[in-house]
Amino acid sequence: MALIVQKFGGTSVGSVERIRNVARRVAKWRRAGHDVVVVPSAMAGETNRLLALAAELQAQPDSRELDVVAATGEQVTAGLVAMALIEAGASARSYTGWQVKVLTDSAHGKARIVSIDDARIRRDLAEGRVVVVAGFQGVDGEGNVTTLGRGGSDTSAVALAAALKADECQIYTDVDGVYTTDPRIVPEARRLHTVTFEEMLEMASAGSKVLQIRSVEFAGKYKVPTRVLSSLTDPMLPVEEEARAGTLITFEEDPHMAMEKAIVSGVAAQRDEAKITVHSVPDKPGIAYAILGPIADANINVDVIVQNVSHDGMTDLSFTVSRGDLPKAMKILKDQVKPHIKCKEVTGDDRMAKVSIVGMGMRSHAGIAAQMFRTLAEEGINIQMISTSEIKISVVVDEKYAELAVRVLHKAFQLEQE
Amino acid sequence: MALIVQKFGGTSVGSVERIRNVARRVAKWRRAGHDVVVVPSAMAGETNRLLALAAELQAQPDSRELDVVAATGEQVTAGLVAMALIEAGASARSYTGWQVKVLTDSAHGKARIVSIDDARIRRDLAEGRVVVVAGFQGVDGEGNVTTLGRGGSDTSAVALAAALKADECQIYTDVDGVYTTDPRIVPEARRLHTVTFEEMLEMASAGSKVLQIRSVEFAGKYKVPTRVLSSLTDPMLPVEEEARAGTLITFEEDPHMAMEKAIVSGVAAQRDEAKITVHSVPDKPGIAYAILGPIADANINVDVIVQNVSHDGMTDLSFTVSRGDLPKAMKILKDQVKPHIKCKEVTGDDRMAKVSIVGMGMRSHAGIAAQMFRTLAEEGINIQMISTSEIKISVVVDEKYAELAVRVLHKAFQLEQE
Repeated sequence: MALIVQKFGGTSVGSVERIRNVARRVAKWRRAGHDVVVVPSAMAGETNRLLALAAELQAQPDSRELDVVAATGEQVTAGLVAMALIEAGASARSYTGWQVKVLTDSAHGKARIVSIDDARIRRDLAEGRVVVVAGFQGVDGEGNVTTLGRGGSDTSAVALAAALKADECQIYTDVDGVYTTDPRIVPEARRLHTVTFEEMLEMASAGSKVLQIRSVEFAGKYKVPTRVLSSLTDPMLPVEEEARAGTLITFEEDPHMAMEKAIVSGVAAQRDEAKITVHSVPDKPGIAYAILGPIADANINVDVIVQNVSHDGMTDLSFTVSRGDLPKAMKILKDQVKPHIKCKEVTGDDRMAKVSIVGMGMRSHAGIAAQMFRTLAEEGINIQMISTSEIKISVVVDEKYAELAVRVLHKAFQLEQE
Repeated sequence: MALIVQKFGGTSVGSVERIRNVARRVAKWRRAGHDVVVVPSAMAGETNRLLALAAELQAQPDSRELDVVAATGEQVTAGLVAMALIEAGASARSYTGWQVKVLTDSAHGKARIVSIDDARIRRDLAEGRVVVVAGFQGVDGEGNVTTLGRGGSDTSAVALAAALKADECQIYTDVDGVYTTDPRIVPEARRLHTVTFEEMLEMASAGSKVLQIRSVEFAGKYKVPTRVLSSLTDPMLPVEEEARAGTLITFEEDPHMAMEKAIVSGVAAQRDEAKITVHSVPDKPGIAYAILGPIADANINVDVIVQNVSHDGMTDLSFTVSRGDLPKAMKILKDQVKPHIKCKEVTGDDRMAKVSIVGMGMRSHAGIAAQMFRTLAEEGINIQMISTSEIKISVVVDEKYAELAVRVLHKAFQLEQE
């Protein structure tokens, strides 16, 4: 008999009928003798509705008050899921973040969990109840409502699983697991039965939307066995079958397993990128900070950064930002940065995509990068930037080649084969 | 410089534009140097939307979980009103019921306030902030979310005013005060500048929808000067003018004022009533309880009760219930009561209305009832039941005569004259 945390995303609780299905599924696990903690997101569309109301009142809504408003979406679903469970014959009780309580820091809108008090949850579980905990939210030391930011319910679920030392954290979503790449682009894409934490982390940062990167980090830090699986299957699927569904994120590095493991586990693409190049800047200490400091100050996330070797003491610095941030970044560079660093010019290109291959096997295999670059070259795809980590290689290409790149790389590394 | 609690109903915060107007109005009072606590209801329609979601999941929603869901409506408005105030240049902060905290008993859906901790509110007021407190909600001793029932935000506001010993509790609504009767029925209806607490209580129970009866009781218990006024006037109306607007509920009984006071203050009608008569029951002790006990056990509210004198040891007992409760009440009487008390028959009529006249002056003036009955008789309106209290006379009539009765009584008691 295990202790399981089950998280259901916005689509999974997007209607009364779907909430009923969630309750059937959860009640089934409870009947099978497991202790279950459920973490629902807000109903699909609800968070956006609340944020839009706030944005109508304040262009930059007060962050403390925005959290007061935004946290209600998950509170509503928590109550509704508890009702549906009671109706399905299970004993159930819901808790908000402050009731649990989920203590966070005071960074409204992107709060970090400090601690979780498991006393009430354990007491209810001991009394045979299913416990429903509103995701996405917490309370700070002063008693203010906080939220964890977009996708925060994944983080809530993993954090609860860590605090409760749960046997598994099951993330129910609208896909049935982690694939070698996006099945909408490559029909031969294959679902992975397991993926290592490191691979999942790189895939999340490479554009895979399956799990929020913060929740993956949390799972890694506390070694929470986390399974991604579909909420769209038959809710009455036998428990033994569902326990093997989806993709399990693992932490044990079995040397024997690693030997047999595929070299590359997946291909991911991140669209909506923009590339900025600052041309002919003096190659001296502090120049990268002079350029990227003001960008960071404006809360613009920079992704890939490349600086080429210098010629005659001058170099070019290129980096990518989200497409939406390009105008703001260009303005900062032209108005604030260019006058100081005396670069030649600043150019921007808003039609870029980042394509990445990820795999633990890359650590011990040479020539992977070369094979990736050759594959792209054979299709006439020009690589504009390259960035590598121990288990990932990313290239920035013209956005119009993104899907083609994913398809040819998926095939080149034979990811369709088990 | 006064301390004022301002409550805004669902219509007053029913859209972003209206919330902006609320903020302008509140900020104006703050700028005039007053300490202001704002209590908003949920946006019009929101509570019904939430209750409908719950009702789809459970025919009789779990009362604890229903409160978790229902309380979010006011939490959203509290945050939005605080944002609008900040945008309007006022320093502001919102609190939920559990943050204040508003401690209640555990009667979910109809909780009663036990105590209010004013520490956080006083601290914020001292720092120059407007404090926004979500209405309708509280928290019980176990930390569960509770709600006060329909119209509970009025009660929240009056209770906060009592706890803070506020100088005035202003209830902003979609009417501009308490009238001698419903102006939609009688165009000559006149707004009362003041009304006594006792009159307000009788008017509320007689069908006036201006204030929830529980909030009036609360105002009376703690002698909170409470003003009913319109949120639809120009929000920039000068403070001195707004301070005299609407209708003030008073507690001081000034003998001089009473002398000059009109005998009758208002006429009210309650539609959607149903009359039930249990015919020919033995006139003996315990018979009323035998009939009305099972009705009360089924949570059906009984309003007017009349028992006529007996003939040959037999009498008729008549009482009114809400029209919606008639079928349930009839079933209880026929299935459970009739077999035991051996009455002749039970009849029901679901087209009734209660028309009442209310006034402190009635205490010391004879002949008011006679004038009321004569006025109705002259219009051919048959009185089916009569019930009186010290400052109210109610009659039950065929519903089709309700408006006519209100109009002729308003005229007969010259209520259109100051």
